[in-house]
Order: sequence, then structure tokens, then C-alpha cells
Amino acid sequence: MIAPDFQSWVASRQQHVERALATMLPAADIAPRRLHAAMRYVVLGGGKRVRPLLTCAAGEVAQAPVERLVLAGCAVELIHAYSLVHDDLPCMDDDVLRRGKPTCHVQYDEATALLVGDALQSLAFQLLVEQPLARDAGLQLEMVRLLAAASGSRGMAGGQAIDLAAVGKTLSVPELELMHIHKTGALIRASVLLGAHCGVALSDTERGRLDTYAKSVGLAFQVVDDVLDAEAPTATLGKTAGKDAEQNKPTYVSILGLARSKRFAEELREQALAALEGFGDRALRLRQLADFIVLRKF
Amino acid sequence: MIAPDFQSWVASRQQHVERALATMLPAADIAPRRLHAAMRYVVLGGGKRVRPLLTCAAGEVAQAPVERLVLAGCAVELIHAYSLVHDDLPCMDDDVLRRGKPTCHVQYDEATALLVGDALQSLAFQLLVEQPLARDAGLQLEMVRLLAAASGSRGMAGGQAIDLAAVGKTLSVPELELMHIHKTGALIRASVLLGAHCGVALSDTERGRLDTYAKSVGLAFQVVDDVLDAEAPTATLGKTAGKDAEQNKPTYVSILGLARSKRFAEELREQALAALEGFGDRALRLRQLADFIVLRKF
Repeated sequence: MIAPDFQSWVASRQQHVERALATMLPAADIAPRRLHAAMRYVVLGGGKRVRPLLTCAAGEVAQAPVERLVLAGCAVELIHAYSLVHDDLPCMDDDVLRRGKPTCHVQYDEATALLVGDALQSLAFQLLVEQPLARDAGLQLEMVRLLAAASGSRGMAGGQAIDLAAVGKTLSVPELELMHIHKTGALIRASVLLGAHCGVALSDTERGRLDTYAKSVGLAFQVVDDVLDAEAPTATLGKTAGKDAEQNKPTYVSILGLARSKRFAEELREQALAALEGFGDRALRLRQLADFIVLRKF
Repeated sequence: MIAPDFQSWVASRQQHVERALATMLPAADIAPRRLHAAMRYVVLGGGKRVRPLLTCAAGEVAQAPVERLVLAGCAVELIHAYSLVHDDLPCMDDDVLRRGKPTCHVQYDEATALLVGDALQSLAFQLLVEQPLARDAGLQLEMVRLLAAASGSRGMAGGQAIDLAAVGKTLSVPELELMHIHKTGALIRASVLLGAHCGVALSDTERGRLDTYAKSVGLAFQVVDDVLDAEAPTATLGKTAGKDAEQNKPTYVSILGLARSKRFAEELREQALAALEGFGDRALRLRQLADFIVLRKF
């Protein structure tokens, strides 16, 4: 199903990202040591790095240098990592397992987990400005704006708040969609758009197409997540499975049922692929990633 | 003691800052409403706004436009506000009173308070890039880098981690100083340097002087905080007094005693003022702020 050529592209980009993150995160022997060790614990050696992969793939459409794409992708990944740490805290989802390891507050303590998330967010913005990433500094400021908006109260953090308010409620499909557009969609959209910012100028039409792709893939990612949460065993997921139903959270599976959820994910994949028509070979990796995201088993 | 002219300058800048914050924070009727209401609850209508005042005062040294200074100052204030919300959480200081009102997790709930802090941090960076604030975009990227570094694991968040590790321990004066250089000093230093970035170019010597001023004032601020925590009643402080001693936290008062702490604050004020020599009238507000910070009673 997955082309060998795509597999080696993914592996190469994942290695780049891993190395960059290991270099950018303060060493565990720099004070405050416990905080730095915990930051490395949650970020390194785990995760599919879907967001940096999207950044790298989108950057190929704009012929952007790999080094820049990896840095921009790492900034998004740090935001994602901080959100997982805070999301797992007892006052939120109260989860004990993440990427097959004890969650941060279990391995360290709650206060450390809180500070780890806070410091990872700061580090994401620092990473995004320490080296030239775009054609000019003004565009790079726009990248900061994009990431900040995608992370904040009208993006990811807002999605978490909508999620909190939805527990135990029956949501309509549009309400559920609104929640996910914020909770996961905003950051996935930012991953794609940041990649495009690292390269040559694109036309408004081209940027519009990337945006449509990003929105479809972002929602597909969440629908597939819900399907996997209902179907896959904990060992495969690396996080506690069946958690959504147990916590009485509305999901695509609970509202649409399993079969219709899978069909919806497939429709979104087709929408994403349709948006890429006209890019030709430049969008090869984006196409393969859409397949990867919808057809993954973990 | 405080010149009437200085009082009206402070009042005018505080009003500017309050208005800008009220405009920049999403309205409470925009979804997610509870999150936005809580963000407004913690940021608006309270606080001395010492950090934005320092930004405005430092900007006068570089003849920077007030509008820019107010925006840069608001970005720092949002970082400060988020840190207070997270600091008050049960897993940290577990405090119920802040600026004379119930803390965020008491008024709302813990999960909301967590997200309020997270979203305020994102908003701070968004604010710093939405409008031109410096002579060129490259300098504005440097402002983002400054604020991110001051907020992260080697700045404010790192200071909180050192603070956590110090509970119940006996620290030496240099260890205590290291903690505060991170915990409050880094952000106060950023306040001053960001203000200078909004104006005309300064020489290396001039920037060095501002930095010395910022470091002295930042530490003085903390020493005075410790003195007030030991001396002032809760009603005057607007936060729970005597908390440090109760939580067995090392403070300047617990290590140096009250009299020597006051003398140390005075020495730091003199150092701060000495650093400003050579700026002439341009540093009037910075001078007055150093006095205000050390001589304040709340």
C-alpha cells in the first residue's frame, strides 16, 4: 500500500526532525535539569511527526530548502507536544499512557508537567525566529502570527475548551466538526501553510488549494483518530484506547457510527487529493501523506 | 515622594495598556465563550502593569512611538498574566486570591485556568507580530526571540522550576539570586529591552546600560516583593500575605533578614540609577520607575 520510496522519504524526514529537536531542546545537564530532562522525555523518541512531515511535504510544492522546513516543522511539533502534556494532566483527560510511555505528570510530577508544556510553547516560538526561514523577515513574522493564531484561544487551545464543554453532551455533526477544526485542524493547517512560507512565492490560487488540502486532511486525521480509538488495541495506539467512549466524549464514531465514519474519512481524503490537482509532481509527498493519514492503523 | 507629573504619566500609560488589552483579548461573546471570559477576567482591571510601564519608559530613551510601546508592553503583560494563572494552580502554589479577586481556577475551574494560561501565552506572541513595532521586520523577529527566551525554560518557566525544587531547602544568597534572575528578572529585562527595540538605534554601550538597569530593577522588584510578603497585610497586597514563610520557601527576608533585605533593595536601586547616567532627560521615567518599584508599599 505504501510506496517504498515514500517510506524512505518519511524515515529521512523523521530522522532530520529528531536530530533537530534533540539539538534545539536544552541538554538535560543544563539547569534547571529536571525541567530540561522532562522536556526531552516528552518530545524525543516518539510520535509519528505527522505535522513536521506535512510541513516538509508542503514545502516541496514551494521548492523550499529542507533545513528550513525541518525547523518550521519542529516548531509545530513542539506546540503539539506541549498540548499533549497539558491534555494528559489530571484536570484535563487524566491519562497515564502516551506514546507507549508513562505520561509526563506520572513520570515526573504535575507541577513539572505544567512547566514542561509552558516552556515547550515558548521554545516553539523561539525556534521559529532564530534562523532565517522565509524569503524575507516580514514573511517570517507572518509565520509567527500563523502559529500563534493556530495555537491560541481561536485555534488549538480553544478546541480543547470546546472539547471540555462537550463532555456528556450530544453534539450535532457541525458542532463536532467545529470542535475538531479548532482542536486538531488549526495546527495541521498551520503545518502545511508554514511549509509553503519557507519557499518561493505561490499564487493566491495555489495557496487556496493548499489550504483546502490542509483543512480536509486535518479533519480526516481526527475522524481516523476516533475510528482507531474505537477499534485499535491500546498496545498498537501507544495511548489508552477506548478512552473517548469511557469519558463520554462525543466522537465521529459515537455520532455517525463506525461505517459512516470510515466513509467520511475516505471522502475527506478524496477532497484533499482533488485540491492538489494542478501541482503535478511537486505535490507527490502531500498526496502520499493524505493516504498515510487516512489509511494508517495506529 | 512620587512626583505628580510621574503619577499622571503612569496613569496615562496604564489607561493605554488597559484599553489595548481590552481590544486585543477576544470578546467574551466569541466562542469558546467561557475561555474568553476567563482570559478577560484574569488580565483586565487589575495589576500595576509594572512591565508595560518599564517598556514605555525604556522606549522613551529610544524616542519610540507610544502606540508601539504599549503593544510590546501588552505582550509582556500577557506572559506575566499567564504565569500568575498557572502559578496559582493547586499543583503549584495553590493560591485562592490574586489582585484582590478569586484566582482563575477558583472562579472558573482548573482545566479552564490551564487553557487560559496556554492561550494567553500564544496571544502574547501574536500581539508582538501583528503590527510593525520596530524599524524593520528583522528587528521585530529579534523582539520575538527575546520574549520567547525570557519566558521559556532558561527564563521565567525555568525560574518556576528552580523555585519548586527549592521548597523546604536552605539556599545561599547566590542560589536565591539565580532563581529570581530567572523567575522575575528575565521578563523584566525583556520589558526594558523590548521598549528600546521599538525606537531609534542605540549604541552597544547604551544597550548595555539599559541591560544593567533592567537586571538591577528586576532583582530589586523581587527583594521588595519578599519584604512586602513578610510585612504587608493581605488586604493591601491583593494576594495572600505571609505565603512564602508558610510554604517554607526561601526568600530574601528568610535568608538576609528584614533590615538587610531593605538595604539590599536600596543598593540595587542605586545601581539601577547609576546605569542611567549619561541618558539625561530621556531616562527620567526609568529613574522614576526604579524609585516606584523599590519604594512601593503594595
